[in-house]
Parts: sequence; structure tokens; C-alpha cells
Amino acid sequence: MTTTTEPSPMVEPVETTAVPGRVPTSPTTGEGPRVDVAALHDTLLGRWPQWRSAARARSAEPDLWKDESLSMAEHRERVLTQCRLMAADPKRQSWLAFPARLGGGDAPGANLAGFEELVIADPSLQIKAGVQWGLFAAAILNLGTPEQHDRLLPAAMDLTVPGAFAMTETGHGSDVAAIGTTATYDPGTEEFVIHTPFRAAWKDYLGNAAAHATAATVFARLITGGVDYGVHCFYVPVRDAATGEFLPGIGGEDDGLKGGLRGVDNGRLWFDHVRVPRADLLARYGQVAADGTYTSSIDSPGRRFFTMLGSLVQGRVSLDGAAGVASRIGLAIATRYAAERRQFASATPDDEVVLLDYAVHRKRLFPRIAEAYALHFAHDRLLDLFDEVFSGRGDTPRQREDLETMAAALKATSTDFVLTTLQECREACGGAGFLTENRITSLRADMDVYATFEGDNTVLLQLVGKRLVGDYATALRTQVRTGQGQVRFVARRAAGVVLHRTPLRRAAQTLADAVKRPALGTCFGVDAQRELLAGRVAAKVEAVALALAPAQKADPVTGQEIFDRHQVALVDAARSHAELVRWDAFTAAVAATKDAGMRTVLGWLRDVYALTVIERDLGWFLANGRLSASRARAVESELDDLLRRLRPHVLDLVDAWGMGDNHLRAKIATGEERVRQDEARAYYASERASGNAPQKEKKRTR
Amino acid sequence: MTTTTEPSPMVEPVETTAVPGRVPTSPTTGEGPRVDVAALHDTLLGRWPQWRSAARARSAEPDLWKDESLSMAEHRERVLTQCRLMAADPKRQSWLAFPARLGGGDAPGANLAGFEELVIADPSLQIKAGVQWGLFAAAILNLGTPEQHDRLLPAAMDLTVPGAFAMTETGHGSDVAAIGTTATYDPGTEEFVIHTPFRAAWKDYLGNAAAHATAATVFARLITGGVDYGVHCFYVPVRDAATGEFLPGIGGEDDGLKGGLRGVDNGRLWFDHVRVPRADLLARYGQVAADGTYTSSIDSPGRRFFTMLGSLVQGRVSLDGAAGVASRIGLAIATRYAAERRQFASATPDDEVVLLDYAVHRKRLFPRIAEAYALHFAHDRLLDLFDEVFSGRGDTPRQREDLETMAAALKATSTDFVLTTLQECREACGGAGFLTENRITSLRADMDVYATFEGDNTVLLQLVGKRLVGDYATALRTQVRTGQGQVRFVARRAAGVVLHRTPLRRAAQTLADAVKRPALGTCFGVDAQRELLAGRVAAKVEAVALALAPAQKADPVTGQEIFDRHQVALVDAARSHAELVRWDAFTAAVAATKDAGMRTVLGWLRDVYALTVIERDLGWFLANGRLSASRARAVESELDDLLRRLRPHVLDLVDAWGMGDNHLRAKIATGEERVRQDEARAYYASERASGNAPQKEKKRTR
Repeated sequence: MTTTTEPSPMVEPVETTAVPGRVPTSPTTGEGPRVDVAALHDTLLGRWPQWRSAARARSAEPDLWKDESLSMAEHRERVLTQCRLMAADPKRQSWLAFPARLGGGDAPGANLAGFEELVIADPSLQIKAGVQWGLFAAAILNLGTPEQHDRLLPAAMDLTVPGAFAMTETGHGSDVAAIGTTATYDPGTEEFVIHTPFRAAWKDYLGNAAAHATAATVFARLITGGVDYGVHCFYVPVRDAATGEFLPGIGGEDDGLKGGLRGVDNGRLWFDHVRVPRADLLARYGQVAADGTYTSSIDSPGRRFFTMLGSLVQGRVSLDGAAGVASRIGLAIATRYAAERRQFASATPDDEVVLLDYAVHRKRLFPRIAEAYALHFAHDRLLDLFDEVFSGRGDTPRQREDLETMAAALKATSTDFVLTTLQECREACGGAGFLTENRITSLRADMDVYATFEGDNTVLLQLVGKRLVGDYATALRTQVRTGQGQVRFVARRAAGVVLHRTPLRRAAQTLADAVKRPALGTCFGVDAQRELLAGRVAAKVEAVALALAPAQKADPVTGQEIFDRHQVALVDAARSHAELVRWDAFTAAVAATKDAGMRTVLGWLRDVYALTVIERDLGWFLANGRLSASRARAVESELDDLLRRLRPHVLDLVDAWGMGDNHLRAKIATGEERVRQDEARAYYASERASGNAPQKEKKRTR
Repeated sequence: MTTTTEPSPMVEPVETTAVPGRVPTSPTTGEGPRVDVAALHDTLLGRWPQWRSAARARSAEPDLWKDESLSMAEHRERVLTQCRLMAADPKRQSWLAFPARLGGGDAPGANLAGFEELVIADPSLQIKAGVQWGLFAAAILNLGTPEQHDRLLPAAMDLTVPGAFAMTETGHGSDVAAIGTTATYDPGTEEFVIHTPFRAAWKDYLGNAAAHATAATVFARLITGGVDYGVHCFYVPVRDAATGEFLPGIGGEDDGLKGGLRGVDNGRLWFDHVRVPRADLLARYGQVAADGTYTSSIDSPGRRFFTMLGSLVQGRVSLDGAAGVASRIGLAIATRYAAERRQFASATPDDEVVLLDYAVHRKRLFPRIAEAYALHFAHDRLLDLFDEVFSGRGDTPRQREDLETMAAALKATSTDFVLTTLQECREACGGAGFLTENRITSLRADMDVYATFEGDNTVLLQLVGKRLVGDYATALRTQVRTGQGQVRFVARRAAGVVLHRTPLRRAAQTLADAVKRPALGTCFGVDAQRELLAGRVAAKVEAVALALAPAQKADPVTGQEIFDRHQVALVDAARSHAELVRWDAFTAAVAATKDAGMRTVLGWLRDVYALTVIERDLGWFLANGRLSASRARAVESELDDLLRRLRPHVLDLVDAWGMGDNHLRAKIATGEERVRQDEARAYYASERASGNAPQKEKKRTR
């Protein structure tokens, strides 16, 4: 435990010096650096190791596991029961984010560190718990007043009131500002009238809504005195807790079967002039007086809207973490299996090659292991920032904005990464990977929706791209203001164009390379990596910013046309930004590693990440003069060298994730393959020894 | 119907002039070329339109549909029942591939054209039917003698005997030559003794094995007279048809739940000294006389093995077709939804932008529509070749080899394409895409295993790569033999290196480009496309061939090391080859299109395919001097232009696939989204008209 931990008023979780799960230390053959698996494991537990460990240990207990044999209805009930077990847990880990005066821990970061690990047990459990504590109760916490906390939170926290988070509508998901549900204030009765005016305004895809929710935090446009004050949130009872029937004026539908997360009862809700007391507008950011007068501490409707939505960023933060956990499960299964599974004859007589010793197999898995590490380190930084803002220690508008941008960038790319990674892992395990007993397909199905809920990934990347472009414009203005002069800035930019965009530098570098080709292993050092990755983001953002600039002064149609021309580039810039954020976090983690051997291996892994990112976008680096052809061709061979160098360490790197048999729950990752092979080998050996082995045909007839 | 059709002795299927399903003609706004949807639909039906249409129409009938609500056990029974319906169908379409004297059609190509369409009904049904008729019965047909056909085929064809195809073992999938099951001849009783010597030799992942099979075609190493003659196939009864119990000496296990295809009862089988009569060795390629003497028309054990395995190529051919069908279903759903779904405000007041009018959305879907067309045209060529070989009209070793290579290349890449495409489609539909009622996640889960069964995609690509390298070596030798001289060949190659590999040409082209930048729309004409795509394959193959050449003379360990260094490049060359095959087929189809307008639109679509392929591998083209930086940068903008140009035609291109509501079975593709939007729009309009609409806050307070 090398990191600092927050003091907590709550029951201490289990000790973590005894690492939960299996963390075997692989015997290191030969010389060279080695990974101290236990030490790396402890480092990876991060800033709240006791809570992360506790959640990981709890997730390894069978009563929280996904039961693949259940029907949808049975699975839903099982997950509800599991949530009740968690609510009743004396450690009260699920309450960590809530106020200490209500039994919580005032510890938002520690809360997420543990919450993310629930994916190990069952993603349905994670999401059902996330709906209850991370969305429904969190909406009360983040959008409500202290009085509302005291009145509404306890029943939400202890699951007396299972709740839905009713924001998305059938007609509008990512564009929350355009929802159709209205909450019209009636000063005569001091009530809000919640109403669904048409089918597209039905609330949809809501966890807990199909079966279990007895209340919901409902987002609706607040109308009072004939004015629409935009989207606000209301606490609305929806079902009779005793009978399970909808309350008068409320109806809904079951979303039915889904591609995954079948333990979550997603559904639809509609409201027909449902009256709720004035006190149940969650009133932190906007209040309505008895006479209908609207007040808010935030004057700008736009800023108020984004502040309210921004307070719900923890969902995105936690999904980034959950995507990392699920990626590590898949990679651990596939890597362990590949370390044992043999196919096709080897150079050694009577033996076959282990999958990990095939170049293609290394290329399929190792870069993803490196990227999973990059995800991990960047996510730790995201958790830090989240905790700083939400603990109140560093809650500034700038930090909030940074947090939202980072959460959007990382969530959008990690939830994409987990899907392609689990698919690669499943295919890398062949037919065995397709069997549910080996976990991967089930996990992938559950993770699928992470790509579009809590913000569609494309929409999120666009948001990140716009923020980057905005920052660029601000930097431009700041330079002018501080007297550095736009002329100089533009000149620098022009120099950049000359150096990187036009063929001149490329031609020069090409000819220089023809004379002095850089030696392998030296041309992609850490400085070169950063220059390439940071330079790429700067160049892409600059290009989009310059291209979009005319849109601001254009008429709406032309403006939209200009935006449309550069939307793909905007999203692409945001993806590159996320990769730079991860590279930076990875590099900082390497630098912070004390043990020299471990630092070396993690450094190689970081190099693999950098080269993988560069290889993915090689065309851009070449077309924009950032890499010469010879350096570009060196990427592949250098990467190949690194993957070979990592081969003896890869099981250690996977073991450091601390995933034991009860976390992986995949038969092929238990060593059964090795047992089968030993038996087969023993059989053939005894056949040969007995002299009964049949001759090979060609030996006789040829 | 412009293509020729085979005469068939069988019952004629339904007429196809009335196109099954909905094929509406989109109104074309404005001028320019247009697509004749009905004509294109007919063209796409290909060479056996009546059989493809019949299967498509049959798949649109509810009794063959996948029922998502069923448990695994119920789904298995439903699919068995569906197979029985198909077997009893008076059109006997399932029997098309079998001998006419047994009630079949002697029409292997027509058979597959229909079989592929079964994916529309339920991929489990396709695979269960494929196991019965395409593997179990096909093994009897392709590996058996006419006497065995007469004796064993009828019960397999009419499903009196449901059968398993017992080739894969737990320990060996793609490496069939290494299976452990033995069939030892006992001349005393004139029987073979089928035996599973250890756990890794259990037959595994076999469709029909867990529940329904009463017989199996079992692959085992044939041993007679103390000599192992390699893998042969045996007809082995496995269950008592009356009781469903395993026969003596036979056991097994259920593979249980899988990531998809839950209607197929995959399972494991083992044999404990099970005796089968000598007559039940499927004896087309190898025979054992009563006294145990082995004979074969093929002397070389290696060639015999590959001939036997090659006779089973139709599985791969049909999976390529099935992957195309499933891709089209997903793309049709996502495109129709995107044509109606609106999100975020547009330049037009009070309206929102249709998803298809977002550049990112076009870029997500249109290139995949183009690639789906490329898949289609290449698959038609594959079917032609398959029919030629398996009808006997063109059954030469060279054609067989070409067929196997083409099937491997196309299957390995199309079954990868379908998975990424269905995922893109599901995400493009947001949360709605995740609901089972919208089909895509269910279809994707079922298609998942297509990537690893009937040959693991990586192994298949390696096989293709090796063939390409072998062809290169043959060409080299042929040149020497024909007196053209290796010197000249090497000189040409050296010139190629100078032109394409070294920086010289790049530098020259770079400087030339700086002076005369090619105008957009002209720099990627059809000749340039072919030069780029064919040149890429040639260069990649040549590079690998030269790199691998020393391995042939090296010791085994060094040889394996050399191979390992270039395995990734070998597989990469094979992928590029598949893309060239598709581009060629697409281009031939464009050229064959009579209607000028349609030819224009299909030409654009082919250009999109070409530029998509080039963009995917842009780094290679640049690093190897095939594209200058400015041409490379033009790829993106030219592609963007093409996607805009295709925007008015994209629904036509999708409609030409002939997928009606009963084929798609996705609620979001039925027009319900448009109905919801019309209702919402009418509501807001009436609010405004009544004067009751609330004011916007900012209008009042700012």
C-alpha cells in the first residue's frame, strides 16, 4: 500500500494484505528485469485499496454472481435480492458517496473505486446498483437540498424505495434539453403537474422501471407563470409499494429482452397529469416559491442546465472504470488459456506450439494488455479529479469542466475498447470462447450497452472535440490579450504548417533518412512518443478549429454545412486526445515506479501502447509529415520486438490484476487445458514405450 | 431475371416476379442518376433467383422465425421441428445438393444460394440445417461411395436420422490432422474399433450431439496392420432413436449455453472401443479390404487428407453468404431508422436533423453498405466457382485449390465484417439498438461463432497467405523454366523496390505533387484503384515470400523463428487479397450493369469501397511510396464527397436487398419512429397555434 487513503467514518472493510483471488508469481526464467506481481498488484489497487479490495472480494462470493441459467424474470429478481444484500451489508460500501450524517462516507472517489468492481460479479448487478445509488439516489443528492436529502435519501439508500432515473425519452436520449415531459406549476394547489404530452416523450430504457421502482427522479421542463425554465428534476412516486401497481395517472411498459443486462428491468414510464407537491422539485439549482416565482443561483438557463447535468458525471466516470475491469477479465482469461493451449506442430518433435508463441496471437493480445494498463492509469487520474470536485476540496468551474471532458473522452473510448477486446479474446479462445461456461460472450453482451448509455459515445466525443476547439480559441484570444500578439501565434502556426503539412519537411526527412536510417529501438523513445502523440492532438485540433471558424459568422444553414464537413475530424481529434491522456497517465505511472525491473517492464508496455496508437493512425502521421516512410515502417518491427520482449512477463502483468478463479469464472482459465494436454502426452509416450504405436504411413510407403 | 438458371428436376419454387418482402421505390428528388430498385433487386438475386427467392420467402414465414422468448431447451426443440418442416417441404429445397436419383437436385450452387437465406429466419435454424444436410449428410455424399449414398443418404436427407459431424475435438480444432480419435481395423470381425484415448480427444462443439443426433460422421485416424493412414471418416450410430439414450460404449456431454445459436444442441461425444462394420468407413478416397489391406486412389497421405477436407469446403462458402445476408439485415435496420430518427436542433427552426444527415453517421453506415455490396458480388463469383467444381463441370485440382483459397479468404473476412457491422448498426441505433425487439443484438450474438467455426479466421487467412506465397514461388520458377530468366524477374522486382519501397519515388512524387496537386474527383479513378489494390497485394506477397525463403533451407527451430517474424505480414497479405477479390467482383458487376444511371450509382458505391479499403491501410500505401501525402489526404475528402453524393440513393441501395418487415423484424425499421415524430410535431404546432405554448426563459429574462 504505497498510496494515501482517506480516513473513513465507516466500518472498515476486509484487510487487503492478503490479496483476494489468486496472484501467483510466475517463475522468471533467465535474466533481465522482472515484475514483482504482488507489488504491482498493490499499486494497481490505487488510492482506495481497501475499498477496491473489499468490493473485489465481495464480488468473488457466489451469492453475487451472475447465474447464466436463469430466465429474464428470475435474473431480475436475483439481482434485486443481491442489491438488498448490498444495502444491508454492515460495511455499507454502497453508501460511501452519501452524507456521513445519513450513514454514508462522504467519499465519492472511494465509492466509485469499489462500485466499478461489481462488474466481476454481474454487470446487471453493477447497473442495477448504479441505477439505485448512482442515478436515482445520486440525483436526490446532487440536485436536491439538504432538507430533501434528509427526507428522501434514507429510503433510497437502504432500498426501501427502489427508484428509476427517468431522464431519457423514446424520442430523445443524448439531447436531454429537447425532452417533451412537462412539469407545470399550479399555484392554486402548490403542486407540479407532471405530464407526458405524446408517445415520443415516454420515459424509456429506465432501469428499475419495468418492475421494481416505486419512485423515480423524473426530468421534465419546468413551466411556471407561462414560462419554460428548462429541464429540472422531480421526485415522483410511481408504484404502490404493497401491490406493485402503478399509481393513478402513471403507466408504462417493459422494454423486454435486451442484448445483455437481462437482470436489469428496463422499462418505459408515462405520466398523465400526475400531481407532486412543490417540495418535490429537487431544488438545489432552481426553486419555485409558493406563488410560482422561479429563482435560481445560476442566471443563464444554458449554464444551469449543464451544471445540473454535469452533477451526474459520476455515471460516466464509473463506466470508464467498469470497462477497464471487464477488459481485464477477458484478457486474463484469453492470456491464461493461450499460455497453455497448443496448436499445430512445433520445431520440437512430438510437441505443439503454445498459442502465446505465435506472433499473430501476441499481436492480438499484448497490445490490448498494454492498452488495458493505459486505461487503468488514466482512470485513476479521472477518479482523483472526480473525488477532488465531488468531495468539495477542488470544486471549481474549471475543474468541473475538465472532469466532464476527461470523463467523456475516457468513457467513450474505453467502452469501445472493452467491446473489441472481449471480442478479440473470445475469438482468440476459438470455439471454447463461445461457450458461456468460459464467460467472455456473456460479459461482452452485458458490456454492449455501455457504448451508448450515460451518453452515446459519438455524442460524447463530439462534446470533447468542441471543448478542445474552444480551448484552442481561448488560447488564441489569451495570447492576443497578454500582448504576445496574434501575429506571433499565427506565425508559429504557419511554421507548423510548413514543418508538418507541406511536402517540404517530408522530402527533406525522406532524403535524410535515406542517408542515415535510425537504428531500431532508438527512434521511438519517450520524448519522440510524446512529441508524436501531443503534436497529433494539437495539429488535429488546430485544423478543425481553423476549418470551423467561418461557421460562427455564417448563416445557420451554411454554418451547419461547415460543421458537417468537419464533424468526422472533430470526433477523430477527440479520440486522439483520449489516447494522449492515457499515454500521459501511463508515463507518469512508469516514472513513479520505484523498482527498476518493474519500471523497465512497464516502460516496455507503455512503449507498446504508444506504438500501437501510432500504428493505428499511421496514415495520419505519414500524410502530415510527422513520420518518414522509414520510421513508419520501423513501427511494426519495433512493436514486434517489444512483444517478444514482453512474452516472459505477460502472465505476470495479467496476474497483477488480481483476478482469481472466482473472479474469472472461466473453465478454460483454470488450468484444465494443461491437465488435458499432459494426459494426452502421457498417452502417446506410453504408446511409444510399449511399442504399440502405429507407424506413420509415409514412413512405410515412401 | 437476367441470369441463366439451371434446369431442375425438382418441384418449382414460388414465382419471383412478385418480389417477396417490401421493395419500395424511393422517390428521387432532383436530377441525376437514379437506382431502379426492382431491377437491382433482381440482379442481386443472382444466378439461381428462384431458389434464393423461395428461401427468402420461406424465411419470412413466422413458423421458421427465431422466438426470443424461449429457453434453450425449448429453442432447440423448435429448431428441430423447423428442420423437420423443411425436410417434409414438397419443394425439397434442402435436398438440392443431393443426387437426383435419391430425390435431390444435383444442384450444389443453387442449394447454397437458398441455404444462406435461412439466416433471415433464425441463424440457429441455418446452422442446425447446415449440420444435418451440409455436414453430416454432405460427409456421406462427398466422402462416401455410391453404394453408401444409396444406403445412408435417404435417412439423413429426410431427417429420419439426425446426425452430428464429429470432426473437431476438445484438443484440436483447426489442426484436424492431429486429432486423437482412432479407428483400428480388426480383420477378425471385419470391424473398425472407434476409440477416444484421452479427454482432449473427445469430440466437441458438435451441433446435434447434445440431444438429437442418432448417428454421426466421425473423423478418426484409420489404423490397419499397425500403420496409421491418417484421418478418415466413419458412419457411427450414436443414440437409440427410440429412447434417445447413447448406444453402448458411447457417451457425451452438453456444451450448454453459448454466446448465441442457442437453438443448436452443441455437445461432446466420446467412444470407448465402439465397433462399426467395415462397410461404414466412408470409402471414396480410402478403402480397407477384408484382410485389412489399405488402398487409396491418392498415394500421398498429405494430398489425400487435404482432398478429403477440401470436399467439405461448402460450409465455408455458405458462411460467407450467410455473413452477407446478416450484414444486410443489420444495415437495412440501421439505415431505415437513421433516415427517420432526428436528434439535436437543425438550421431549420423547430426541426431536428435526421441521423443520416450527420457526416459521422454517413461515415459509419455508407462504407459498410458499399462493403456489403462488395461482399455480395464476390460471393456470387464464389458460388459460381463452387458450382462448377461440385457439379463436376469444372472439377480440376487447380479449380479446387482456387475454390478453397477463395472460400477461405472470403469467409475469414466476411464473418469478421458482419460482426463489426452489426455492432456499428446496433450502436448507430442507440439504446433502441440494444433491445431484442430490434433484432440486431440477437443476430450479432448468433453470428459471433461464424468467425471461428468451419475454420478459425486467423488459420484460414494464414492458409490463404501461404497459398499466395506459394503461387509467387511458382511464378518465379515458371519464369525461369520458360526462359524469361530469373535475372529479368529479379530485375523487375528490384525496379519495384526502387519505385515503391525506397524514398526516391516518394521524394519525386512529393515534389511533383507540390507543384501540381491533382484535382479532387480525378485522382482515384478505376485504373488507379486497381493499381493501388493489386499492387498492394503483389508487394505484400512478394515481401513475405522473399522474407520466408530462407526458412526452407533452415533448421526447424530457425525456420519456425523466421516464420514467426513474418506471420503477421502473411495474414495481412491475405486480408489485402480478399479485398482485391471483392473489388474485382464489384467492378465487374458495375461494368455489367446496363442501365446508365444505375451504373453510375453503383460505380460511386464501388469507389466508396475502394477508398474505404485504401483509407484503412493508408499507412501502408504511404510508407511504401504508393501514395503521396497529398493524395493520401485527398482520400478522406473524396470519400466524404462520395458519401454526400450517395445520400439520396442510400435507401434505394438498401431496399434493393429485398428485405421486408418480415425479414427485418425490427420495430424501429417499420416507420414507427416517423409516426412518433409526426405526433410530437403536431402537438407543438397545435400548442403554438392555441397560444398556450410557454415562453422560453431566455427570451423573457435576457
